[in-house]
Amino acid sequence: MQAEIITIGDEILIGQTVDTNSAWLGQRLNEVGVDVAQVRSVRDTPEAIVGALNALHEGTELVFLTGGLGPTKDDLTKHTLNDYFGGELEYHPEIYDHIVELFRSRGREPNAMNRGQAEIPNVSIPMHNPYGTASGMLFERNGIHYLSMPGVPYEMKGIMKESFLPWFMENFKIDPIVHKTILTAGVPESELAATLEDWENNLPAGLSLAYLPSAGMVKLRLTARKGNPDENTAMMEERFAEARELLGDCVYGEGVSTLEEVIGKMMTEMGVTVSTAESCTGGSIGSMLTSIPGSSAYFLGGIIAYANDVKVKTLGVNEADILMHGAVSEQVITQMARGAAKRMKSDYAIATSGIAGPDGGTDEKPVGTVWIAVHGPSGTKAEKFQFGHNRSRNIRRSVLMGMDMLRKELLKAQRERAKAEI
Amino acid sequence: MQAEIITIGDEILIGQTVDTNSAWLGQRLNEVGVDVAQVRSVRDTPEAIVGALNALHEGTELVFLTGGLGPTKDDLTKHTLNDYFGGELEYHPEIYDHIVELFRSRGREPNAMNRGQAEIPNVSIPMHNPYGTASGMLFERNGIHYLSMPGVPYEMKGIMKESFLPWFMENFKIDPIVHKTILTAGVPESELAATLEDWENNLPAGLSLAYLPSAGMVKLRLTARKGNPDENTAMMEERFAEARELLGDCVYGEGVSTLEEVIGKMMTEMGVTVSTAESCTGGSIGSMLTSIPGSSAYFLGGIIAYANDVKVKTLGVNEADILMHGAVSEQVITQMARGAAKRMKSDYAIATSGIAGPDGGTDEKPVGTVWIAVHGPSGTKAEKFQFGHNRSRNIRRSVLMGMDMLRKELLKAQRERAKAEI
Repeated sequence: MQAEIITIGDEILIGQTVDTNSAWLGQRLNEVGVDVAQVRSVRDTPEAIVGALNALHEGTELVFLTGGLGPTKDDLTKHTLNDYFGGELEYHPEIYDHIVELFRSRGREPNAMNRGQAEIPNVSIPMHNPYGTASGMLFERNGIHYLSMPGVPYEMKGIMKESFLPWFMENFKIDPIVHKTILTAGVPESELAATLEDWENNLPAGLSLAYLPSAGMVKLRLTARKGNPDENTAMMEERFAEARELLGDCVYGEGVSTLEEVIGKMMTEMGVTVSTAESCTGGSIGSMLTSIPGSSAYFLGGIIAYANDVKVKTLGVNEADILMHGAVSEQVITQMARGAAKRMKSDYAIATSGIAGPDGGTDEKPVGTVWIAVHGPSGTKAEKFQFGHNRSRNIRRSVLMGMDMLRKELLKAQRERAKAEI
Repeated sequence: MQAEIITIGDEILIGQTVDTNSAWLGQRLNEVGVDVAQVRSVRDTPEAIVGALNALHEGTELVFLTGGLGPTKDDLTKHTLNDYFGGELEYHPEIYDHIVELFRSRGREPNAMNRGQAEIPNVSIPMHNPYGTASGMLFERNGIHYLSMPGVPYEMKGIMKESFLPWFMENFKIDPIVHKTILTAGVPESELAATLEDWENNLPAGLSLAYLPSAGMVKLRLTARKGNPDENTAMMEERFAEARELLGDCVYGEGVSTLEEVIGKMMTEMGVTVSTAESCTGGSIGSMLTSIPGSSAYFLGGIIAYANDVKVKTLGVNEADILMHGAVSEQVITQMARGAAKRMKSDYAIATSGIAGPDGGTDEKPVGTVWIAVHGPSGTKAEKFQFGHNRSRNIRRSVLMGMDMLRKELLKAQRERAKAEI
């Protein structure tokens, strides 16, 4: 089944807002067997909205519109759709009750503008918005369904999960499209492709492979659009088992799982704990680890040691080593990792210290020089990396490399345990 | 001047990748007076790419294509464009030299696939890619220019900044579109709109206002597409001065500046320092503060106190208070903030402790209960918040509210200093 997404709003076109809604919609729709053929972002003018509605691809049966449903003057979507589908605005008391309730729960009172939000076209079915005041609206014409939702991501997600998808699953029955993804870290796309060349050439027809690179990582995705989903899944698993053999330890997981999820699962299974000592990453590793529900089971805490004084007084780094070797050095990073593990009484610790930039580089240690250490039961492992000139990318890559070093240490420990058990 | 963006790749349509390129392109293009009329994300098939090229809006003079230029089999854009514009692939030794150099700098050797990347259509001008192996390609037909770039964001940005934009500025002269934005925190869209209703109704023709809400914040954007940019800017500044009067302290800044930039500037000017004591935000506040170049001038460090033991041993929170009132309480958050300031010797400190969810809630303290404290020279201020059920949103809102509480404390201190100086 084919769908299109239309995101409405000048803020997207002028780049003030990144459209994250389409990616989320694409994922959810794929899971239920709906294939997004196109995403279009248009201005919030009636002409642009109608223009997009009149230019749908052949075969599109579902259209998702996001944006332009707020209470303020700049929001035109509702009136445009009302005219387009030839309806009239109709007041829904149950929608207004929900609006009042939302405002009261935040200790506020709705105003006239919010009352207007309880009026929706009489040619649409309201789709309840659990988290906001703008109701979703479902239109239908010539067998094509159109769902209009607000652009605020959590409101759009609320309407999809609690209103639209249950309705859709009940009314449509489709074979899901099957995707399987291998996640790799630390090896460039072309090198992976060379390793997998023969394997890729021998993939059965109907399976398509895609390489999806991002800073420090590459995802390998197999897709089967046609055929029995269970058979496709089985076939993919077989092929991916071969690929994992060829690729070795650069594979950190499968599916949509993230490095932090994979690490969280490993640590929970092993019953071990971790802490952090972050300088150049400034708390990003702790932030990533704690993004996982239940992370308090294995993440104890961390020290953001930005100033050298904190490295010395809180992590117990030897001040003489900072003076002699600099804060970005093997001597200091090793002590930072050990210091965090000792202070937090954790089994493992990740430490980072580097020159993120744009300033602070020297000939000997240019911007992008980063030391990362992982301390664990089998000792402390330190590695030096040379990243680029972009601050945010240097921070991001330091986080990923630190997380991946921890993952590899955990992997080693798991294998040793397995050996010991034999 | 009107442009369109075409992003190519199934990974965008199935939601495996969020298209951040279009937003970045939209910003850069607006700055040079180019107006993005539409963004389209299409499949990486020749049909979809050609279909998008054949369906440009009337009046479009610039087309930006991103994606599908990697060395691997799934990347079809180059060949599709070569056929579309009727060219032949031509080997460029200078491109290959650059590829070799890039690989050597990472201690690797290019392979045959990478050599293929040095071949580009002879009907295109190469646009140097400083950070990657896939060259940008500039085509022209009937006065429309088409720029094809890789989808990897930093490579795309490198081509735009170092190759395309310099070329464009040299060859085209245009009046920039003027946007001005007021940034507010903590007040809902409809309340802002009510406050500004009269002001908004009296805006001169040619100025359009947009409300852009996101978790905990609303941006107010004025846009002038036509007319003299300097006059427009002057007119907007006048109007925004009035709006700031009406809105008061919920305004934290203007333009594209972020809360962390605003706080960084204030602290640098005031010559004060800050540290953090993060529980439920797990390092995200430190991460946000240190995302700013030069933040080491005012950010000393932080304690991620996830486990209660860390709150007690490293922040000096009274264990009895944790037992009596719980870790999410006014007593504990106040001690966390003071403890961080004391240990790090900082003038200010932000502390967070809450139940981010999805689990851990009680009747008395449901998921979404968060205590935030800001300690400063004039004492410690603690506030209790009740957010929702979504873990990542609860963390995000805690970060924003903590940052905004710090901003307001700094504002107060600035005013007291100003008074003292009179």
